[in-house]
Amino acid sequence: MAEPSTQSSLRNGNNPSPSASPTRESEAPQFPEPKPTGSQPVGSDGIARTLSEVPMIDVMGGASRAQINVLDHGFIALVDCMPRLVPQGQTADAAIVQAARVSYGHGTKKVNEDRGLIRYLLRHRHTTPFEMVELKFHVCMPIFVARQWIRHRTANVNEYSARYSILPDRFYTPNLDQVRKQSSANRQGGEELFRVHDDAQELKTAQDFVKFLDDVEGFYQRYLSLTEQGVSREMARIGLPVNMYTEWYWKCDLHNTLRFLSLRIDSHAQAEIRAYAEAMLKLIEPLAPATVEAWRDYDVGSMHLSRLEIDALKSLAAGGSGTLASDNSRERTEWAAKLEKLGFRA
Amino acid sequence: MAEPSTQSSLRNGNNPSPSASPTRESEAPQFPEPKPTGSQPVGSDGIARTLSEVPMIDVMGGASRAQINVLDHGFIALVDCMPRLVPQGQTADAAIVQAARVSYGHGTKKVNEDRGLIRYLLRHRHTTPFEMVELKFHVCMPIFVARQWIRHRTANVNEYSARYSILPDRFYTPNLDQVRKQSSANRQGGEELFRVHDDAQELKTAQDFVKFLDDVEGFYQRYLSLTEQGVSREMARIGLPVNMYTEWYWKCDLHNTLRFLSLRIDSHAQAEIRAYAEAMLKLIEPLAPATVEAWRDYDVGSMHLSRLEIDALKSLAAGGSGTLASDNSRERTEWAAKLEKLGFRA
Amino acid sequence: MAEPSTQSSLRNGNNPSPSASPTRESEAPQFPEPKPTGSQPVGSDGIARTLSEVPMIDVMGGASRAQINVLDHGFIALVDCMPRLVPQGQTADAAIVQAARVSYGHGTKKVNEDRGLIRYLLRHRHTTPFEMVELKFHVCMPIFVARQWIRHRTANVNEYSARYSILPDRFYTPNLDQVRKQSSANRQGGEELFRVHDDAQELKTAQDFVKFLDDVEGFYQRYLSLTEQGVSREMARIGLPVNMYTEWYWKCDLHNTLRFLSLRIDSHAQAEIRAYAEAMLKLIEPLAPATVEAWRDYDVGSMHLSRLEIDALKSLAAGGSGTLASDNSRERTEWAAKLEKLGFRA
Amino acid sequence: MAEPSTQSSLRNGNNPSPSASPTRESEAPQFPEPKPTGSQPVGSDGIARTLSEVPMIDVMGGASRAQINVLDHGFIALVDCMPRLVPQGQTADAAIVQAARVSYGHGTKKVNEDRGLIRYLLRHRHTTPFEMVELKFHVCMPIFVARQWIRHRTANVNEYSARYSILPDRFYTPNLDQVRKQSSANRQGGEELFRVHDDAQELKTAQDFVKFLDDVEGFYQRYLSLTEQGVSREMARIGLPVNMYTEWYWKCDLHNTLRFLSLRIDSHAQAEIRAYAEAMLKLIEPLAPATVEAWRDYDVGSMHLSRLEIDALKSLAAGGSGTLASDNSRERTEWAAKLEKLGFRA
Repeated sequence: MAEPSTQSSLRNGNNPSPSASPTRESEAPQFPEPKPTGSQPVGSDGIARTLSEVPMIDVMGGASRAQINVLDHGFIALVDCMPRLVPQGQTADAAIVQAARVSYGHGTKKVNEDRGLIRYLLRHRHTTPFEMVELKFHVCMPIFVARQWIRHRTANVNEYSARYSILPDRFYTPNLDQVRKQSSANRQGGEELFRVHDDAQELKTAQDFVKFLDDVEGFYQRYLSLTEQGVSREMARIGLPVNMYTEWYWKCDLHNTLRFLSLRIDSHAQAEIRAYAEAMLKLIEPLAPATVEAWRDYDVGSMHLSRLEIDALKSLAAGGSGTLASDNSRERTEWAAKLEKLGFRA
Repeated sequence: MAEPSTQSSLRNGNNPSPSASPTRESEAPQFPEPKPTGSQPVGSDGIARTLSEVPMIDVMGGASRAQINVLDHGFIALVDCMPRLVPQGQTADAAIVQAARVSYGHGTKKVNEDRGLIRYLLRHRHTTPFEMVELKFHVCMPIFVARQWIRHRTANVNEYSARYSILPDRFYTPNLDQVRKQSSANRQGGEELFRVHDDAQELKTAQDFVKFLDDVEGFYQRYLSLTEQGVSREMARIGLPVNMYTEWYWKCDLHNTLRFLSLRIDSHAQAEIRAYAEAMLKLIEPLAPATVEAWRDYDVGSMHLSRLEIDALKSLAAGGSGTLASDNSRERTEWAAKLEKLGFRA
Repeated sequence: MAEPSTQSSLRNGNNPSPSASPTRESEAPQFPEPKPTGSQPVGSDGIARTLSEVPMIDVMGGASRAQINVLDHGFIALVDCMPRLVPQGQTADAAIVQAARVSYGHGTKKVNEDRGLIRYLLRHRHTTPFEMVELKFHVCMPIFVARQWIRHRTANVNEYSARYSILPDRFYTPNLDQVRKQSSANRQGGEELFRVHDDAQELKTAQDFVKFLDDVEGFYQRYLSLTEQGVSREMARIGLPVNMYTEWYWKCDLHNTLRFLSLRIDSHAQAEIRAYAEAMLKLIEPLAPATVEAWRDYDVGSMHLSRLEIDALKSLAAGGSGTLASDNSRERTEWAAKLEKLGFRA
Repeated sequence: MAEPSTQSSLRNGNNPSPSASPTRESEAPQFPEPKPTGSQPVGSDGIARTLSEVPMIDVMGGASRAQINVLDHGFIALVDCMPRLVPQGQTADAAIVQAARVSYGHGTKKVNEDRGLIRYLLRHRHTTPFEMVELKFHVCMPIFVARQWIRHRTANVNEYSARYSILPDRFYTPNLDQVRKQSSANRQGGEELFRVHDDAQELKTAQDFVKFLDDVEGFYQRYLSLTEQGVSREMARIGLPVNMYTEWYWKCDLHNTLRFLSLRIDSHAQAEIRAYAEAMLKLIEPLAPATVEAWRDYDVGSMHLSRLEIDALKSLAAGGSGTLASDNSRERTEWAAKLEKLGFRA
């Protein structure tokens, strides 16, 4: 039974990081041990309540908010999750295992077996148990990031309304050495940075871009002034740029959150939303460590071989050339990159 | 700060029911008071954790499960929710208000203002804040009920698998005085009961029906035996009837749960699923009392007037006949019923 | 059987508008009459194909696109729908009726009975049959409108990407007499117009606002120039304002399209998205006339009475005062407005 | 311009199968050629209609239904799709390409480029363009199959109601040589058949199983009789088994249909639903041939390598052992199977 004097040292029972866990295991805040029976008779309200048989801990360690700052004025904060309370020694992974085991009626298993089950589920696309964990974030991000984010439809969102309220003076402006060039190889991308330290012309372009954003931001005062003169807020804001920050609550189950991460942590995603995805991952990992580990192994760190690529690899194994049976140059290029990553030479 | 000795008296801080709340307010289990600052500096992991400024309580009162038995062998149990921890004195309604107020950036308001806001949101179909509350149930119900239930698509479900596991011997059989006749007025319904105490013929029919179910249930041993002889479980079960019980975890946000309730607590829903809806409502009400109250006023207890019905009521107000301008007999019958409910005579 | 010479006069069989239907009924383009049997034997591919028993017509009248221009540079165009081909004399309403009748196995009914069934379904919230009709639109709208629109999650969307492509020079600018004031009564709204013809000060403010948008639009050349200097498109566009036009394909079923319309045609919706909703309704109405009629009667033109309002009306019917039993001033104001609309005096 | 006399030979313009395409290309039923201008002025209704610039054909070849029978009494029939009308020489693939190209504003491309684009989209998980194609099926299947099917939530469904209507006398019974044993290796599966020709004991068990189903089916008359005696249909049916057939309309976009197929055509799916998936694929393939081809290459025929498996393959390429760095026996077994499929020996 935890002593009162230690309960003020709130910690996240799942997070081994020293800064997050300054206290000993035994000092973790927890629910008191229930009565031995573990269940109560049906009350006069017709409801039978069962007490937890083991002490419960808050997976957020007593915090109401865990926040990481992103970009120049943004942030992402985990503000709630389900399960929030788990048996001591466990994490939110437990809710996934519990759902998967509804078919067996088993009692609690060892954590090691749980890890194996979670890996099995994720590997074989048994996705519904991962939907049993729910996450809620408070996010502040530029509008152009919000526009990419909202395309993930399986989430609940409440956004700040610029029809009701004045937008605060927050604009995203990258540093000079963060300005990205248009990729020549990839119509979508903008990965390469301007060489602001080595090339006067490129420095000039980056400066022009930042100046452009500064000048746009200068219009904020006119926006404010127009609303003061009575122009409706919903109308006045239409001249404001998409690098303005907005904010919302975003609530999503873990399965769909991982799909969000897979797409937005990818190198093809725009760098700004990628920064949010990376911070989100950092916030999630201590909550469901076995799931995130499996997701790294079977999703982000994995490789997909097409039917043609399997054939090419088979030919290689048989002493052949490993050439892809396709006349599409892009498919051949992608295959060459995979072969190299696998350590083979075609 | 709660004393350890009182913390074993777990209770639901939201539920005024005596059986659920045997202890005084001050004895409620709660999270210890955080440090005055309410926030911690950014840790070495780059995450800034904020402690709650007020003591937090478990809206489930320390219970891991609150269950109501339904039908002869079924149940519905609330097994988790989000928010699970709320500031002392509040309920899950707080998460709805918090989401709605993201536009204002306000701090905590008085509970009374919260109630007004919740009523406003529900009345004006601002549904997204109600999606910020999540509920998880463990349900055991006959397959024919599960088939109606699953049509609500905005939920996460993990069901017991009769491919993996042997189905336990649980069949739903109504009592003789619960057997329902086919309605003559309503092709869908079956509201009227057989008069088993007053009419020998009707008693006989009800007995025949219960005997029919008993005989079907008798096949359970053959199902078991066939699986023991090596017939695959996924195949052996196909001869089992839809009054067999199955079970699942069902997780859904509050907005969509209320839509489920609106449709399934309705008098047109089949009596068996209605029994589950009524139990579900009982479990939800203490978690989000202001929301459920508003839903009763603006949804289940409300009335919808069509354009033609508005016109008819206007004619009545002007001293006219209140006749509906429709030659559809069903529409006219429905209008007559509404007028009567409103206390008017056409 | 239509003559070839008449088939070039494409028309919308559902639209009585003269401009859309220059030819006689008998000249409508249609599929040839099938063989009397109405079905073919199973082919060597194992597929049995059934020919339509009646001539089929294109509900879009042979058009590949039906467009209405909206705002200064936007549009909404219906570009496809399902059903696209319907039996001659019918509309897309037929697919709703067909789905609702799956329970009866009935053959075709008279159009009049179909209308009654559709009204019944819509009145009693049997929504799934309305999901059987699908609509696809091509829309060009300002980003701030797109941001409101995308909140309707039950739709499929493909949007123009400013990461891949240069945004064309299209900005929304209202006319001076379309600039709206902030409502004092309604924090959200902006319904009242500046009196630009009567009030010099208000004219000045409206002019300031339009000038603000013109100045913002002036930055477009700098955006172009920066991309020409090599700044990535995904980055250069972040300084552009939310009154820039974007475009997308938006595909949605009829049930969810009507929910979109209910919310966005409402007087609380921002005027700009309302303009799109009104144009959308105009495009849909000829496709599913009975459904749109029912929706007008039971949704947009309807009134919702809360439990308290029913009680108040009952008291009025009984000779009482009709006062709402609420101390919430907003609820009382709303009730007074309803009473007035119904022709009663409290 | 097609001659009337040939138009009665309806065919699917996309399907090269001889039986489906008995007529020459030029004989395909098609929409008449539009006027050269390709667009009409805005009508008095404010709508500008554009005529197709090329003749349009029905991708279903004039059929209202294309059906494949499945199991003993079931079927799956394609009854509509969107796009239904496409430019002559194209297929429903065209709608995918059109959506993907909204970013470019390009005109029509050659079919070959379209195929490359579709492969690119599918390979790189750009899934939204595939949502632009919609399919509608009429399906008759046993209830236990329907229960697996309905778990795919992104679809619209209207099912036959046993509350409204009497269920017809249709039960699924496998043949003796289709009865499956419980797998010892795989708790889920039942792939192995009873050896009814070689083993008397196994024949006996298979016969027992079929007899079990026959006896259950015998209860159908009691169901009928009870409804005739006035027991409500919703209640009488609860004693009927899950091998009874039900039917529904099922409407889904192509992306989610392919996800359904990926999961249900898999060897881990129950054989009965797999039979439906295979028939569905057969019906879809002629509609969107490039998409189905790409899906075969990049999805069903593909292989996924985990992070650990990539490392193992790299070690093999470097002359090492190719051993998986995992102590999980199942993971190691799966890796061995993959290696073998790739032609390597660990």
